[in-house]
Amino acid sequence: MNKKITIAIDAMGGENSPDKILKAVSLFNKKNISKDDYVLNLFGDEKLIKSKLNDDKISNNKIIITHTESVISDEDSPLTAIKNSKNTSMWNCIQSQINGNSDISLSAGNTGVLLVISRMILKMMNKVNKPALAGLWPNEKGMNVVLDLGANIECSENNLVDFAELGSALYKSIFPEDKPIVSLLNIGSEEIKGTEILKNAFKKLSSLSSENNFKFNGYIEGNKIMSGDSNVIVTDGFTGNIALKTAEGTAKFITDNLKKSLTENFLSKLSLIFSYFSLSKFKKKLDPRKYNGAIFLGLNGPVVKSHGGTDYIGFYHSIDLCYKIVKGNLMLQIKKNLNHLNNESE
Amino acid sequence: MNKKITIAIDAMGGENSPDKILKAVSLFNKKNISKDDYVLNLFGDEKLIKSKLNDDKISNNKIIITHTESVISDEDSPLTAIKNSKNTSMWNCIQSQINGNSDISLSAGNTGVLLVISRMILKMMNKVNKPALAGLWPNEKGMNVVLDLGANIECSENNLVDFAELGSALYKSIFPEDKPIVSLLNIGSEEIKGTEILKNAFKKLSSLSSENNFKFNGYIEGNKIMSGDSNVIVTDGFTGNIALKTAEGTAKFITDNLKKSLTENFLSKLSLIFSYFSLSKFKKKLDPRKYNGAIFLGLNGPVVKSHGGTDYIGFYHSIDLCYKIVKGNLMLQIKKNLNHLNNESE
Repeated sequence: MNKKITIAIDAMGGENSPDKILKAVSLFNKKNISKDDYVLNLFGDEKLIKSKLNDDKISNNKIIITHTESVISDEDSPLTAIKNSKNTSMWNCIQSQINGNSDISLSAGNTGVLLVISRMILKMMNKVNKPALAGLWPNEKGMNVVLDLGANIECSENNLVDFAELGSALYKSIFPEDKPIVSLLNIGSEEIKGTEILKNAFKKLSSLSSENNFKFNGYIEGNKIMSGDSNVIVTDGFTGNIALKTAEGTAKFITDNLKKSLTENFLSKLSLIFSYFSLSKFKKKLDPRKYNGAIFLGLNGPVVKSHGGTDYIGFYHSIDLCYKIVKGNLMLQIKKNLNHLNNESE
Repeated sequence: MNKKITIAIDAMGGENSPDKILKAVSLFNKKNISKDDYVLNLFGDEKLIKSKLNDDKISNNKIIITHTESVISDEDSPLTAIKNSKNTSMWNCIQSQINGNSDISLSAGNTGVLLVISRMILKMMNKVNKPALAGLWPNEKGMNVVLDLGANIECSENNLVDFAELGSALYKSIFPEDKPIVSLLNIGSEEIKGTEILKNAFKKLSSLSSENNFKFNGYIEGNKIMSGDSNVIVTDGFTGNIALKTAEGTAKFITDNLKKSLTENFLSKLSLIFSYFSLSKFKKKLDPRKYNGAIFLGLNGPVVKSHGGTDYIGFYHSIDLCYKIVKGNLMLQIKKNLNHLNNESE
């Protein structure tokens, strides 16, 4: 028998926890009722979790609960929170990867604290200098991986090359059928555009591309992130964070205005009856909960950060993402991609 | 009698020129038929322009045509284009500001060439180190100014302070009733977030804010660019360009998918009949042609770059923008904002 996929879940992090976490766990179990290849390791207040699990009538043969004393507080400063983190659900959730009890960790708690604790416990992978935060974006053909989304505000050319390798490994683990196509985010598609760091990363990726498990597709501009021609978009954490949030803000602005327009008078409200199914499909495709979950890459184990404010459906998608990442063997994919570094040092 | 507002227009730049330019000129004249306070200086092939103007039956008492021999070619490299630019419509259009015949220049030609030629002819303003490209974005309350959108890929803290002063002067000239509220684009709203350059710019802007013609509002994240709480967003040209294009790409992705949804079956098509007017209003509010025109700031005279691919309605909005900028006395507003530099050197 193969070893089961074990997902460590911080049951206490984020808004409305543990309720939303447990509802998400319940939904995940329901959708995977026929599968027997996974275990969910929940960390948090055992008594509270058990009472809620009973409330939800979840069959808990796929659930292991580990009691933890405290929770990372959003009131404390990050520094204080980290200092006092040893007995928290978040800390123990990640620590279980070191103990060999889990393959991946998932939390909706404070991002900054999660990044620091993860790095403290799991440590950087050999040959990777900086970890990166990767996210999923919808595009015309399906989904993109974009990284870094804010773990590093300044990056060297070697960091960007690492991110290309980490990101394409992530893409490959989630979409095993596809070949990752990597692009560097820049302000033009010509080779002469951009900073020296980008130009040097371009050169390195061009030479690596052929011997690697991804295809390097050159530069991409911001308006092509969602075109679907590339599926791994690499950038520094400052630019990636601005791009992600600008896209979120733009999407909100447009859909808010659309909603206003479609409910402003009797006729437009009437039209909603006829377009109900089409608009539901449209809404479903763009539902940000489907893309919930940023993946922390470059450590000796994957950590997924769920949006703190998402609901149980969003958190369910994060659990599903964790399942896919482990099933697709992310850590092996990363090691394959980093292989050229061995060759270089020979 | 006051001096008239004179707008120099490169009639040959961009796609479908001079046709679209002349149609835009015609539309502008029609909409301003009661006004007698402006003149449009057209630069290009005189014979061609005259024949087209007659075609369009434009009354041309508000138009002066200056014949120019050649046009900046998109086929040439920027360097070759610049070398051979002396007799072009673009060059003469900008040169007319030096000769005192125009207050502002407008072109839909090659952006890179326009930026270089503008700088060669008009020269940098005293005390401004780098020019910036500013654009207009829709927001919940009206419109934003965002800069730099790509003129400078790397910026110092002093450049960012300059951009705040240039951008708020631009905002004041277009919207004389409002007080410009300036924010720095960053990856978080807390003071400790971001690069050293941003932190230093934050400090300088905080101390300048009170004695200036704008209010400094601190940091802003990408998802708040369109919230309307700030109306001047300052960033370096790399980040600004990525943010602008990402917003464009996101808007296109959403509206394309919406269109697909609303025309996919008989019922959804039927709904369009009832929502026609609401959706038209929605479309009109988001129409990118309304925001057409990037403003090149920091030179001894304003230059506006229209999108090369826009149609005559987009170009009309750029002419209208030029009119407002001169009427609002941009150059005086800039000098007012830069005043603190005099005080500092005393």
